[in-house]
Amino acid sequence: MRKAEKKSSITLVDVAREAGVSAITVSRVIRTPHVVSERSRRKVEAAVEKLGYVPDAAASALASNRTDVIGLLIPSLTNSVFSDVLRGMYDEAENHPFSIQIGNFRYRPLTEEMLIGKFLRQKPAGLIVAGLDQTDISKGMLRAADCPVIQIMDYDASAEGDMIGFSHYEAGAAAARHLRDRGYRRIGFLGARMDPRTQRRLAGFNDALNGTDDPQQSKRVIVTSTASSVSLGAELLRELLVRAPDSDAIFCNNDDLAIGALLEAQRRGIRIPEDFGICGFNDLEMSKQMNPGLTSIATPRYEIGRLAISTIVDALSSDKASDPTRIDLGFTVVMRGSSARAVD
Amino acid sequence: MRKAEKKSSITLVDVAREAGVSAITVSRVIRTPHVVSERSRRKVEAAVEKLGYVPDAAASALASNRTDVIGLLIPSLTNSVFSDVLRGMYDEAENHPFSIQIGNFRYRPLTEEMLIGKFLRQKPAGLIVAGLDQTDISKGMLRAADCPVIQIMDYDASAEGDMIGFSHYEAGAAAARHLRDRGYRRIGFLGARMDPRTQRRLAGFNDALNGTDDPQQSKRVIVTSTASSVSLGAELLRELLVRAPDSDAIFCNNDDLAIGALLEAQRRGIRIPEDFGICGFNDLEMSKQMNPGLTSIATPRYEIGRLAISTIVDALSSDKASDPTRIDLGFTVVMRGSSARAVD
Repeated sequence: MRKAEKKSSITLVDVAREAGVSAITVSRVIRTPHVVSERSRRKVEAAVEKLGYVPDAAASALASNRTDVIGLLIPSLTNSVFSDVLRGMYDEAENHPFSIQIGNFRYRPLTEEMLIGKFLRQKPAGLIVAGLDQTDISKGMLRAADCPVIQIMDYDASAEGDMIGFSHYEAGAAAARHLRDRGYRRIGFLGARMDPRTQRRLAGFNDALNGTDDPQQSKRVIVTSTASSVSLGAELLRELLVRAPDSDAIFCNNDDLAIGALLEAQRRGIRIPEDFGICGFNDLEMSKQMNPGLTSIATPRYEIGRLAISTIVDALSSDKASDPTRIDLGFTVVMRGSSARAVD
Repeated sequence: MRKAEKKSSITLVDVAREAGVSAITVSRVIRTPHVVSERSRRKVEAAVEKLGYVPDAAASALASNRTDVIGLLIPSLTNSVFSDVLRGMYDEAENHPFSIQIGNFRYRPLTEEMLIGKFLRQKPAGLIVAGLDQTDISKGMLRAADCPVIQIMDYDASAEGDMIGFSHYEAGAAAARHLRDRGYRRIGFLGARMDPRTQRRLAGFNDALNGTDDPQQSKRVIVTSTASSVSLGAELLRELLVRAPDSDAIFCNNDDLAIGALLEAQRRGIRIPEDFGICGFNDLEMSKQMNPGLTSIATPRYEIGRLAISTIVDALSSDKASDPTRIDLGFTVVMRGSSARAVD
């Protein structure tokens, strides 16, 4: 790679001279282009391009004490779950003069802590964090932040702060009840990553069945800290069928695992849903395309993303304090072929 | 949402007083924690947490004239292709004191232009952009940037600048040749989004077959500007089979479409690969799990991400100019059941 050449700093005045306009016009084109005539704007843009001028944001952030960036800290970018959250955020952000910058903490609380500090030091307009399980230091920084902060993905009435999400515990319980209602009796759980939200789904699942004390139930819980994937779903199903060959259904951590388990079951000639029921989680776009369609728990990912941005924008544009934002968006059990067996 | 309280600014000196250490120790804990004793570090961290102190990065960026952020501008975060690129970047970045911040321009060149300006104003340590198809203004800003800039995903020997990628034109041609070599003769193309890289794959595909002038060939090219999805793959296959019912194979824009087409073909009782061959693109993790496994073009996404970070870090740590980085990582045709028919 070529080393960038160090060149003498190009100033607003240089751009004004090149464009044949006043410095204040250049400043307006950069900060409030809608108040500048099309003709002046083009001249300034041409000069900016020719000179490679970059206005100094560090100086401008010091002056305004705030950037127009909404920071987002999420635990994964390789997880299709966050795709829809992001889509909701970007769709909503287009209505407002903010842009989103993302930090990925890879499910590591200490990395999240470091990134929260880094983002706050950049003076964001607002900050969005995923989940309720930050370290104490992170929670302290979020409490003390002088910008709106909102937590997304999870909902827990007993936790502090603003939040938009749903109860993962209730979702896990609903999946267990759905499979039981369809007549399945020896229901397993396949789980990857086992982050705090997944653990709450498992707790809800266990409580809705016989509880964790039942060894018949606990041997059907196959979990790993490995990241989720379709291949892993196939692998975990094979493990379940070794450890508890009489299992007649599974609730999977997410649809990736469920799709992998469904494809593996088909390779083994297991009849779905007659002999084996499958319920996924998140209701990804492709789940309805499977043969048979995959039953799943639909989660309000797009809406979480959209509301997170609009809540921050509202907080920034209102000049008085409002009530805390604490929204439980719920979830829906979507039954498809993979669990739709006739009940006696 | 509660309005963040405006509080008087907490300074380094306040933290030092609270922790019972000198201000220089507080500064060291923040900037070079490895040189501070564990005991002092804990005291300072407790004080930072208690007071909610946030060091001022705008001031510190002005002082150092550079942040430790590597900016990344990509066209999509809802596209599984970029997941692996990001994984490579994050894995490599962990070896270095840089963090990655992401902007998503949603396949819109003018949004990319705006974000390039915004990122450069934040004085990043380096900038990574996707593809070679920026606007002229964007190209001007990238040329004039005083930090290392690298383009990823695409490779074109005639384009300017540093790049790490592969030739999408050659990849499209290789897919066409693979299907022809397996004896398929009426090969269609299913394409979504039709961004510049997809268009180059289509051009390679067309040139490797009979060229765009052949109406028998052009009626088999089914494309849409809609974003890619598994459901869309099913839909585009249905459209192909209406417009050109005698088609005997398809090359799909990406594996999402190919998986959707494969599942739809199975619903229609079409025998794969005997009567119909399918080749995807990108070789996503789940493709090998399909029944039959999906033939695809494996692309070096993880390696692109890893090399992009290490190239920028090398440029920053070397004090002399080096040769341009222009790396063609190539691609691989991975044949699986979906095109593995016996050739006469």
